[in-house]
Amino acid sequence: MSAERIEADYLIETAYDPRKAAEAMAGEQSSGTFVPVPGETPELKARSAARVEKLEVVGEVEHPSLPGSGAPPGGDRRVRARATLSWPLENIGPSLPNLMATVAGNLFELKQFSGLRILDMRLPDAFASAYPGPKFGVEGTRRLTGVGERPLIGTIIKPSIGFNPQETADVVDVLCAAGIDFIKDDELQSDGARCPFDERVRAVMRVIDRRADESGRKVMFAFNLTGGIEEMRRRHDLVQSLGGTCVMASLNSVGVAGMIALGRHAQLPIHAHRNGWGYLSRHPALGWSYVAWQKIWRLAGADHLHVNGLANKFSESDESVMESARACLAPMFDGKPCLVMPVFSSGQSARQAAGTLTGLGCGDLIFAAGGAIMAHPGGPAEGVLALKEAFEAAIACVPAERYASTHPSLAAALRMDSA
Amino acid sequence: MSAERIEADYLIETAYDPRKAAEAMAGEQSSGTFVPVPGETPELKARSAARVEKLEVVGEVEHPSLPGSGAPPGGDRRVRARATLSWPLENIGPSLPNLMATVAGNLFELKQFSGLRILDMRLPDAFASAYPGPKFGVEGTRRLTGVGERPLIGTIIKPSIGFNPQETADVVDVLCAAGIDFIKDDELQSDGARCPFDERVRAVMRVIDRRADESGRKVMFAFNLTGGIEEMRRRHDLVQSLGGTCVMASLNSVGVAGMIALGRHAQLPIHAHRNGWGYLSRHPALGWSYVAWQKIWRLAGADHLHVNGLANKFSESDESVMESARACLAPMFDGKPCLVMPVFSSGQSARQAAGTLTGLGCGDLIFAAGGAIMAHPGGPAEGVLALKEAFEAAIACVPAERYASTHPSLAAALRMDSA
Repeated sequence: MSAERIEADYLIETAYDPRKAAEAMAGEQSSGTFVPVPGETPELKARSAARVEKLEVVGEVEHPSLPGSGAPPGGDRRVRARATLSWPLENIGPSLPNLMATVAGNLFELKQFSGLRILDMRLPDAFASAYPGPKFGVEGTRRLTGVGERPLIGTIIKPSIGFNPQETADVVDVLCAAGIDFIKDDELQSDGARCPFDERVRAVMRVIDRRADESGRKVMFAFNLTGGIEEMRRRHDLVQSLGGTCVMASLNSVGVAGMIALGRHAQLPIHAHRNGWGYLSRHPALGWSYVAWQKIWRLAGADHLHVNGLANKFSESDESVMESARACLAPMFDGKPCLVMPVFSSGQSARQAAGTLTGLGCGDLIFAAGGAIMAHPGGPAEGVLALKEAFEAAIACVPAERYASTHPSLAAALRMDSA
Repeated sequence: MSAERIEADYLIETAYDPRKAAEAMAGEQSSGTFVPVPGETPELKARSAARVEKLEVVGEVEHPSLPGSGAPPGGDRRVRARATLSWPLENIGPSLPNLMATVAGNLFELKQFSGLRILDMRLPDAFASAYPGPKFGVEGTRRLTGVGERPLIGTIIKPSIGFNPQETADVVDVLCAAGIDFIKDDELQSDGARCPFDERVRAVMRVIDRRADESGRKVMFAFNLTGGIEEMRRRHDLVQSLGGTCVMASLNSVGVAGMIALGRHAQLPIHAHRNGWGYLSRHPALGWSYVAWQKIWRLAGADHLHVNGLANKFSESDESVMESARACLAPMFDGKPCLVMPVFSSGQSARQAAGTLTGLGCGDLIFAAGGAIMAHPGGPAEGVLALKEAFEAAIACVPAERYASTHPSLAAALRMDSA
């Protein structure tokens, strides 16, 4: 790729000649006009037009995946293709918000397409210079939690909503005593009347500090500061001033400009939650692939990114989950890899440990479990221990069942899962 | 609706008992947990749980609309239903970013559903107090442009991208001379190397000021300031300091927190562009309806909102376009209606004027045409005049063809469209 062009890959589905359809898409997203206008010179087009760099037909479909598309007279055979488009960097400069409008703007409604999904993108190095990227990422998160090579064992405060600050802190106390590495607010809990952000941070940090004094290890708590920009900055500063080590933001609530502002301001890792991801991605012929989408947030400053989990309670396949997780650990730029820690969650237990580790190829992940910890028959401490043991077994390439024969907490966890 | 609960309406599609599925959705988005946990008391649930307020089965489908859904043993009949859920305001307080995570968070991926779309929502008055809403809206836009009762005739700088600041200003000069009311940057044009924002504003405002001195009427130009928060504030201030009367932002590029920050800062109307809307909406059983989505941006401060246009070049139906446009002019709160001007665009010409006016029921709209103005055989001035005449005819309930018999610019426009 030229250092000076932005590239994006798409899945397209069309009843027209796919090359002409891709060219219409390139025109719509750059200098093309429906009616020729003064000033639309060949020089201008050569300078500013998007180009179709590659096109590969990958299949055929019987029925249009999305409504509202057109078809040429007499023809309603629809092909699927992978198309790569490119744009001169100078059209927008290294600007993430304007990148959105260019690679994912008025494309998805084009009548030429009965399917259109952005699969990936590649950005010139100017983007790496323009944005901070993750300030902590894998290394920083390990440093702050004191967890070496193994996956971080995490959990989410449940019930998601309804506790007051002291009730939240009481749960945190139990979890700290159980040996947890990481705890997060639920995305539904930010600053409601029953559990105001500031009071929650104060109550939780009192517990975390006391437990850290005893154990010598400070549990990382991701406080959900999702809100307006000024609120987020102020909340971040409060967490930092009280010795907290992580903040959390809901990406689809905050948006790109909000995340850039938070990323520039933050002196703590940003735990990035993707709730709402379903509306961007659930139809396979529409919207965003996670591989493309996560690059925006990494560059803006996310340190941890949610990727769902294997055998999750949602609709996503394991293959898609692992592709997302691996994307978080794939370098974005030479000299600025922007690696972030993938966060596995949703019905996770000791049973998913081996598949998660093998699929990712390393232990740089946060593994967030709920019931597997709180409902372990031996109590939360055994629940945490069982998850650590499950990963020990996976790292040693020993089947969990075999490892369990000498590790009773894991044995109990596996019995619980199969109950 | 209780003043203290947030309500949202959904289309759901499920192979399960739709009431149970809706209850699972309410649980997922409030105090529900998969494995019962300590602290999940009946009192907590009564206080904090989301409720299913209404459920109405509306039909049946043969095939699941979205992949990844489950079905009960032996049953794969899928029903569609309209479900209304409600949440206590105290769960999140009047916070738009946290509203997103609550009404449109981890819902769309739930395995129970093979279709899920948010259709509408109703917010307690506390939201009206917490956010500015449009500062200009219909009245302010009419005041700044000096256009009384009729629709505003607007256009978009084309080619979208490729002009330098002076070339842009030259087009603006032609358009001002032609009697246009409103001009906007394309969403692809913000601050690229060939057309930096500041230089473009200076060049364009010189032309607009000169033309205003001659005509006594200042054309409104929506400068696309999409970018980071600090960039947007600075750019807004530049436009204001040079006497400009409008700024533009791409909503999906900026995001909710970004738009809130811009809305609070702005002293000029905000022209809100919805590019990317297709990925949020194109599948009819997934994502967002515009009726729900536009409420967020109006409250955050948008003054104009794009709604596509009748007989547009995209995939959207006329019915959907008019529903979106009417939503922009439907009051949101008693005492704070937050009315915004719908912006019609995409292949618009004199032929769509009557249908647009009739469908909306009033002339409070911006009608943005491109080729209909620049490619009018009599030149841009006749192009603008023809559009004004088309709306005069529509307001007087006279068919355009009849009105054209005494209005040659309109006659030429209608001939052009049918060519």
